[in-house]
Amino acid sequence: MKRIFLKVAYDGTAYCGFQFQPGDPTVEGELNKALSVLTGEDTEVIGASRTDAGVHAMGNVAVFDTCSTIPAERFAAALNTKLPDDIRVTESREVPDGWHPRKQECRKTYEYHIDNSRTGNPLRRLYTMHFPRRLDVERMREGALCLTGEHDFTSFANPSSQVLKNGGSAVRNIEEIRIDGEPGGEITITVRGNGFLYNMVRIIAGTLLDVGTGRFSPEDMKMMISACDRTKAGITAEAKGLLLKGIDYQEGTE
Amino acid sequence: MKRIFLKVAYDGTAYCGFQFQPGDPTVEGELNKALSVLTGEDTEVIGASRTDAGVHAMGNVAVFDTCSTIPAERFAAALNTKLPDDIRVTESREVPDGWHPRKQECRKTYEYHIDNSRTGNPLRRLYTMHFPRRLDVERMREGALCLTGEHDFTSFANPSSQVLKNGGSAVRNIEEIRIDGEPGGEITITVRGNGFLYNMVRIIAGTLLDVGTGRFSPEDMKMMISACDRTKAGITAEAKGLLLKGIDYQEGTE
Repeated sequence: MKRIFLKVAYDGTAYCGFQFQPGDPTVEGELNKALSVLTGEDTEVIGASRTDAGVHAMGNVAVFDTCSTIPAERFAAALNTKLPDDIRVTESREVPDGWHPRKQECRKTYEYHIDNSRTGNPLRRLYTMHFPRRLDVERMREGALCLTGEHDFTSFANPSSQVLKNGGSAVRNIEEIRIDGEPGGEITITVRGNGFLYNMVRIIAGTLLDVGTGRFSPEDMKMMISACDRTKAGITAEAKGLLLKGIDYQEGTE
Repeated sequence: MKRIFLKVAYDGTAYCGFQFQPGDPTVEGELNKALSVLTGEDTEVIGASRTDAGVHAMGNVAVFDTCSTIPAERFAAALNTKLPDDIRVTESREVPDGWHPRKQECRKTYEYHIDNSRTGNPLRRLYTMHFPRRLDVERMREGALCLTGEHDFTSFANPSSQVLKNGGSAVRNIEEIRIDGEPGGEITITVRGNGFLYNMVRIIAGTLLDVGTGRFSPEDMKMMISACDRTKAGITAEAKGLLLKGIDYQEGTE
């Protein structure tokens, strides 16, 4: 028995999210199905990030256990012959027995993509939130700076978060928020940190859009953080603008 | 009666090309339908470029005649409320009576997008040709230089081209071919010129890929041009990698 690590990219448009749900198309369901066809085993992957319906990924991570004789590095290519074309395994390798993708120190990078053009770009409609209002990107950068660092992000989490319901900590460390692009074009918010609460990146994006339009000031971010109250922050931006870019594990996967 | 110019962007994935075909989804068919709903007139647009099934556009052009009192500049926003979300009119304005988008001096810019990654990026699968073989981009640039300028492009045209069948000239002037990107990532071939034969950009892209792999040498391009024989050039690259970026009219539209 060995444990195999998979790096997974997918277009989330057609899926009800990553996590398996009986009867609905999910990324996890497709991975399990392809693995079972390939190995003849009844396989269930463990995912690193349970992305929501419509959210995309370039570098989500999943592991599974197998007795198959297929070499670990070959699983990527073999799985891609069985998977639908909107899911691709870009890397596979063996990891230590019991290595768990949600129980390791890691750094996640998300991108939130905003189409700020007037009419919307039809070629980017599935991968951006169309937001045609005038945005002050410099103001958004100032607001982003206030969110950077270690804070209690209760105001920036969906209150139905299991972690919060179970009384867990909402303290997270955002290492960096970078905003690229020009008003009228595509604007990308890149957020990197050691952990995220449920919907946290989408609420940060929605709130920074409100800073960009002038509804909030950059300094309002500080008040929102200290309030620890979801109703003080901005909207949850649309799922389809969110991309899980990658997960870096500090150790234990080599 | 006035003539209105439309700049049109679309995701070609769901369409059997631009040109109207009874019973099939086409971009022209959707534009005609939306205009008829909007104006109450039985409208047929005239398109600048009849892109093939699966080909995308950021700046195709179409015109139509109307007696509607809707101001010319308002048609873009009004049409977008009636069009499916994979077609967007990004600009509308009045042009002189009888102005015809295929009978004016113009410069067209196409992009051909190649996904050179090993496994293919699922988020770009509808907008690129996946070509995972190792490419020498510098060699492709040398080959592209041989195609630049005024030549007889018979070898780079689909022989079923109406122009060629009618005994028309295959002489065209390519102003520039630019190749951006790195091996293993997305590589974009940008082609700008005053006119293109049927499938010409896709055959140029397919041939330059063969130069990139080493099947052809850059100098072979000269032999291909002088042969005036379609069988001497490379394959016709996939439709979905092609994007009509824009059409610049030198005069008559202001």
